Amino acid sequence: MSINNIPKSIQKNCQTFLACEADFTEAEIVLFGAPYDSTTSNRPGARFGSAAIRAESFGLETYSPYQDRDLTERAICDCGDLELPFGDSAQTLAAIEQHAGQILAAGKLPFMLGGEHLLTLGTVRAAAQRHPDLCLLHFDAHTDLREAYLGVSLSHASVIRRCWEILGDKRIYQFGIRSGERYEFAWAASGHTQLQKFDFTGLEQALAECADKPVYFTLDLDVLDPGVFPGTGTPEPGGVSFLQLMQAAVQVCRQANVIACDVMELAPHYDQSGISTAAACKIVREMLLAL
Amino acid sequence: MSINNIPKSIQKNCQTFLACEADFTEAEIVLFGAPYDSTTSNRPGARFGSAAIRAESFGLETYSPYQDRDLTERAICDCGDLELPFGDSAQTLAAIEQHAGQILAAGKLPFMLGGEHLLTLGTVRAAAQRHPDLCLLHFDAHTDLREAYLGVSLSHASVIRRCWEILGDKRIYQFGIRSGERYEFAWAASGHTQLQKFDFTGLEQALAECADKPVYFTLDLDVLDPGVFPGTGTPEPGGVSFLQLMQAAVQVCRQANVIACDVMELAPHYDQSGISTAAACKIVREMLLAL
Amino acid sequence: MSINNIPKSIQKNCQTFLACEADFTEAEIVLFGAPYDSTTSNRPGARFGSAAIRAESFGLETYSPYQDRDLTERAICDCGDLELPFGDSAQTLAAIEQHAGQILAAGKLPFMLGGEHLLTLGTVRAAAQRHPDLCLLHFDAHTDLREAYLGVSLSHASVIRRCWEILGDKRIYQFGIRSGERYEFAWAASGHTQLQKFDFTGLEQALAECADKPVYFTLDLDVLDPGVFPGTGTPEPGGVSFLQLMQAAVQVCRQANVIACDVMELAPHYDQSGISTAAACKIVREMLLAL
Amino acid sequence: MSINNIPKSIQKNCQTFLACEADFTEAEIVLFGAPYDSTTSNRPGARFGSAAIRAESFGLETYSPYQDRDLTERAICDCGDLELPFGDSAQTLAAIEQHAGQILAAGKLPFMLGGEHLLTLGTVRAAAQRHPDLCLLHFDAHTDLREAYLGVSLSHASVIRRCWEILGDKRIYQFGIRSGERYEFAWAASGHTQLQKFDFTGLEQALAECADKPVYFTLDLDVLDPGVFPGTGTPEPGGVSFLQLMQAAVQVCRQANVIACDVMELAPHYDQSGISTAAACKIVREMLLAL
Amino acid sequence: MSINNIPKSIQKNCQTFLACEADFTEAEIVLFGAPYDSTTSNRPGARFGSAAIRAESFGLETYSPYQDRDLTERAICDCGDLELPFGDSAQTLAAIEQHAGQILAAGKLPFMLGGEHLLTLGTVRAAAQRHPDLCLLHFDAHTDLREAYLGVSLSHASVIRRCWEILGDKRIYQFGIRSGERYEFAWAASGHTQLQKFDFTGLEQALAECADKPVYFTLDLDVLDPGVFPGTGTPEPGGVSFLQLMQAAVQVCRQANVIACDVMELAPHYDQSGISTAAACKIVREMLLAL
Amino acid sequence: MSINNIPKSIQKNCQTFLACEADFTEAEIVLFGAPYDSTTSNRPGARFGSAAIRAESFGLETYSPYQDRDLTERAICDCGDLELPFGDSAQTLAAIEQHAGQILAAGKLPFMLGGEHLLTLGTVRAAAQRHPDLCLLHFDAHTDLREAYLGVSLSHASVIRRCWEILGDKRIYQFGIRSGERYEFAWAASGHTQLQKFDFTGLEQALAECADKPVYFTLDLDVLDPGVFPGTGTPEPGGVSFLQLMQAAVQVCRQANVIACDVMELAPHYDQSGISTAAACKIVREMLLAL
Repeated sequence: MSINNIPKSIQKNCQTFLACEADFTEAEIVLFGAPYDSTTSNRPGARFGSAAIRAESFGLETYSPYQDRDLTERAICDCGDLELPFGDSAQTLAAIEQHAGQILAAGKLPFMLGGEHLLTLGTVRAAAQRHPDLCLLHFDAHTDLREAYLGVSLSHASVIRRCWEILGDKRIYQFGIRSGERYEFAWAASGHTQLQKFDFTGLEQALAECADKPVYFTLDLDVLDPGVFPGTGTPEPGGVSFLQLMQAAVQVCRQANVIACDVMELAPHYDQSGISTAAACKIVREMLLAL
Repeated sequence: MSINNIPKSIQKNCQTFLACEADFTEAEIVLFGAPYDSTTSNRPGARFGSAAIRAESFGLETYSPYQDRDLTERAICDCGDLELPFGDSAQTLAAIEQHAGQILAAGKLPFMLGGEHLLTLGTVRAAAQRHPDLCLLHFDAHTDLREAYLGVSLSHASVIRRCWEILGDKRIYQFGIRSGERYEFAWAASGHTQLQKFDFTGLEQALAECADKPVYFTLDLDVLDPGVFPGTGTPEPGGVSFLQLMQAAVQVCRQANVIACDVMELAPHYDQSGISTAAACKIVREMLLAL
Repeated sequence: MSINNIPKSIQKNCQTFLACEADFTEAEIVLFGAPYDSTTSNRPGARFGSAAIRAESFGLETYSPYQDRDLTERAICDCGDLELPFGDSAQTLAAIEQHAGQILAAGKLPFMLGGEHLLTLGTVRAAAQRHPDLCLLHFDAHTDLREAYLGVSLSHASVIRRCWEILGDKRIYQFGIRSGERYEFAWAASGHTQLQKFDFTGLEQALAECADKPVYFTLDLDVLDPGVFPGTGTPEPGGVSFLQLMQAAVQVCRQANVIACDVMELAPHYDQSGISTAAACKIVREMLLAL
Repeated sequence: MSINNIPKSIQKNCQTFLACEADFTEAEIVLFGAPYDSTTSNRPGARFGSAAIRAESFGLETYSPYQDRDLTERAICDCGDLELPFGDSAQTLAAIEQHAGQILAAGKLPFMLGGEHLLTLGTVRAAAQRHPDLCLLHFDAHTDLREAYLGVSLSHASVIRRCWEILGDKRIYQFGIRSGERYEFAWAASGHTQLQKFDFTGLEQALAECADKPVYFTLDLDVLDPGVFPGTGTPEPGGVSFLQLMQAAVQVCRQANVIACDVMELAPHYDQSGISTAAACKIVREMLLAL
Repeated sequence: MSINNIPKSIQKNCQTFLACEADFTEAEIVLFGAPYDSTTSNRPGARFGSAAIRAESFGLETYSPYQDRDLTERAICDCGDLELPFGDSAQTLAAIEQHAGQILAAGKLPFMLGGEHLLTLGTVRAAAQRHPDLCLLHFDAHTDLREAYLGVSLSHASVIRRCWEILGDKRIYQFGIRSGERYEFAWAASGHTQLQKFDFTGLEQALAECADKPVYFTLDLDVLDPGVFPGTGTPEPGGVSFLQLMQAAVQVCRQANVIACDVMELAPHYDQSGISTAAACKIVREMLLAL
Repeated sequence: MSINNIPKSIQKNCQTFLACEADFTEAEIVLFGAPYDSTTSNRPGARFGSAAIRAESFGLETYSPYQDRDLTERAICDCGDLELPFGDSAQTLAAIEQHAGQILAAGKLPFMLGGEHLLTLGTVRAAAQRHPDLCLLHFDAHTDLREAYLGVSLSHASVIRRCWEILGDKRIYQFGIRSGERYEFAWAASGHTQLQKFDFTGLEQALAECADKPVYFTLDLDVLDPGVFPGTGTPEPGGVSFLQLMQAAVQVCRQANVIACDVMELAPHYDQSGISTAAACKIVREMLLAL
């Protein structure tokens, strides 16, 4: 056998999210994984989220009967997982900010797969630097508005508060929230963010308000009911259904001017059945198709 | 270091349900765990329920956005788990009856965390002794109205029948029931209990009927759909949602004159994901806030 | 002790699905298990489905409060699991076709417990041979209409396509479908099958169209939402609820002239909690009571 | 099809331990399962032991390369599981005593599959009634010599003490013991039983002492190291290896005049991997071949 | 940012076994995964073995303190997993034979990661075609010498018998065997293979006999004791320890003229703890270092 | 009921490690838990170790037949778990150093239950400040001698290197090591530490060398074979047996002048069977009895 006709099968293994096989230069959207969960205060393991989503995506079809679109028609690059230093949140956020910044600088949409929710701060920093009028759409079970958690200001429980320090009042829209301290809800209600408890009521209105602005869309998957998404650090009973989330996420990705986004907080080890990863995969597919 | 200024951290470890740190004397409500499951006929393990609820409650916030109340504003004592003799139901029930009786005698509300459902008989005995006109509100997937199970009259499958022997006709209201033998449904329908199949229809009416009477509220968590509460001895598909249960339980605790209550049948080992324990914790929090 | 009065307990152990203890000759319905999953493309393990359903059925009551019927009033034989040669789909289908054919020849209704969905082809062959005007009612998350899967035409992903080759156009009604390739949906829409996406809309109409024809009812349990049925090879988020499925399945079994049926694709190892098996058991009970 | 030529496959399902398909009358050994664990003080679930052993035995070969014997050459009846009343130990022991007594009365060897260790008391009662000079060989991690456990004298932790009350001093040989209270070891050492800590040292000598007496052999599988047998109520690190146990058990069954025996305390739910059940199956096979 | 200086991190994700990042042309050894398990007769799931080994290898160091060698000093290519048609063993074996043949034709050593043991037949065919005097060294718990399994001749239980049909008598050396049918042991003993029961006794002698011949080394990981390797289709209690296997495997790879090899039968889903995959990863590392 | 005679059962729940119920002032040994794992590079979850050890210790007897000693004869205080800020290793180490320092200042022996291995640095700092001639005895699978891990110098993979910076050459004795980078072994061999690969060979000699010095004993439980201890972040096949570890640990605690110690790296979620926690509990019991 001559070296020139090596079959394609005899080559190094490249694993990507389902059908996201474009090269960076040709891609419109650039997926990357961010395996870090050092500030998780309850059950760690979100570090395994992005790898699980990538590995299990082969169980999905590329075609969505919901949107009648197919991933094979899109140009998406999956550039794998970053290598992040566990236990050093400042360095980790800097690495993510730089990475997302490079993607944005190339005119592409960065799509981060978490990892814990703190990491959103890195991509929001990168996005806000290029888009000073950035709005933040936030789906989550938790307020994430603490000043700090046990003295740690770079915490998953404080990430939206940190984003607010960058974006300012009336730029953050929160949906599905069903857990937090009393003072966090009060702080939001005093005009800092627009917080919708429990569900997506008011999403249409929020999208209208952001219509002419760049939007960062951050999705903490624990907004889902634990019945369909048990694999997360802090399951909160009473969440939205998969179809509710899928419709809302598709609506955001279709109607808003999303310039960056993320899907966070899958911790697959807490779900032996794999349905949490399956849900994450399908949400990512639908968002990629809708963007 | 002198003995007088030992830091608080260097002391014996006291673990309680979330923020339930009042002393017995100052408490309005007294939580206790009852680890026993010897008559469970399907999958045992409810003995681990109360300890799991206590241990995992730290993942919850003390504040409820549903009721806008906070556990830190309540005086609740958690006096831990009883030590119960596995395999001896009569002695076990006697110990529970005595324990609940002491709490009632002190003018406080006993709140039992199971353990299997048979144990409700112990607290109902104590409550009925002090409140001869006691009514029983019962949420469950199962009728629990068997005369006996394989000849055992002190059985989880017979507990409401045993309670009826104390309380008599038209004092027991059952909701959410979706499993039982034909004769149990017939027995209930003949006027012994008021049994609502499948859901909480008629709860408002039942609360009205009990308006001027003392109420014992017993909640078998398997009334929940197994999708959100797999961790129980006998999961019964087709149950109520978490939000349906939470609303109904809060309604009972707010509108009725609840003088004692229990939350039973979490068997955490059958749910590796932990969502069953999370659901139990939140139900307990909401009930404590609503009582 | 004389040999003649050996107590019933000292005999060989016979395990059947709940109360299905009739002999073959006296039975109207004949249950059998088909443990095979060699063409499963995602997570194998459906081979363990029928044995799990049988073993866990003891946790169910024989009485259904939904239909007010009791299994003890029915004559059903459970003849256990076939022994099937893993890795040889052609021989496996032949064995199932022969087995189902013998049951049909005896004037009884074969009820197969899977096993992977490919096996439906064996029973459909047997049924179509005796009922040339056979219609197929198909509940599933997946189209199962592929021409072939990686070159394998006897594949779980192609089973309804293979059935169509026997039955022809306008004889197949599909419900609950939410996953497939674009071309499969197009092929169905071109008039080959009647395919209802996502739910059971149109079931009444389909039953009316089949009113005077023999019906084969095939139920792939993955039509259920993974929240209540995680234990399957390819969980597809966004499925129907247990009550929706139960009502639809009961409606089919009561209104249609079902001459054979199956319940497929329980893979119990992927659900440590056992709720998937519990759901399968109850669906089987309700179908047996409704037939 | 005439009734006379119904194929063997279309019949009620009979599941037995691997190849133990003899009828009661022709059998030398009679297996039965005893699903009860109501006095288990740590983790319950031994009730599922016998069913798991039976179901998983199909993964074993009938031939033993250790002994060069084959189960197909033996006449063994598996009469299934008794139905025992959870929570009522006295009735349970009576049922077992009666059952084992019937087997002994028919001149056959009863072989009980547990279930918790307390149940051994039922079979020992039956055996001692017919064999007043009965000796007891006991393999276990635990002494099981407590006077009572939380006031319960019919407890798994007291079973050998209860047997001693029947058999008397110097009739009980214990091996592998590595856990107990100080007073239990002292009580044994005072001449009541012969207790070998940690391993099987002295087994040869014990067998010599019992050479001319009928022997009951009780095997609590937790004598095994938890590394190879995690699926039990109270795993005790530091146990014997599988090969050590197998050799010792075979030695007992070959050299002693075993007139009844049991294999207890498999709790399969605590071992998702199934290796505990596999170990139990193989031990049972080797004992059946050696008896 | 110009296209020319895209950082390395923004590229498609390539996942390989630990440090096996050589291109095909420069590699001495070529790893590939073969995800297929359709003939597995007990518990399927070996299809997930190769992907698990690759994904979890990052938990290992590249350096071996056992051999004082480092993987970074070796030129190894990991060309990922083949795509194999589940349910079609003939096509699957043909694909493997072709793939291994291409690697051999390029003068490199093919190292297959299973997958079920049947697949060894594909690589042995490729190897035997180029090396007519090929010897087979076989480590396994099972004989794998059946004529056929339920009529299927291409079965994991028959794979060594099929290899023998190619290689002939006295060319196959089996070690660690502790399970099989009586006739399989007899067939081996009649001179067809050299079979060592239970352990590696005689390995030195076998290596001497093969000293001047090309050797195919096939390692079924279930030769390990289930205590350290529970994650496999048919765990067989009483196996060799990890250190025993590692030493024997290193000895083979160092002393014999190994021209192809495989490591088979990891089924990771049966081991929630991950130790089976960890053991497989380390064995592969040590073999790669020793070859 | 008067307040004065409240029964002991009606009081706040205090959970301690088995029988370690002494008050701080009367205790010789002070247990505390350190739930932190933010620098874990493989699988996190050691944060749950100390709570699991405490909760599961009730399954153990207080009496050790190995040492013929009983915990009820010892004065040990368990002061529960510290509250540590996830993601901030510097603050975490400071808190531990302060806590251990207070215990040492009171003349008592601090016994830390991890948590990840990095935390040892906090207690070693406290001990070295009071004992400048401190020696470190280290049992582990891993060298833990990295200069840094991904740039993080406060890492579990660097902890012994950090301790060496405090203690200096020839003060650290490492046993059981079977994983690390090549340069770590070389660095140790150059005279910085005394490193024994794989087992406890030379322990007697090391104890002799430390005979007149204060000793800190740090035990990373992953030195155990994964077969008996799967529940840890980075399982390393080929470890020591439970009995080997228990004997070595008892030898250290009896012969050396241990002034502080720890038991680290139980990550219980990775072991559904619970045997890892059982092993940790027993090791802690034996060490407490031997100190």
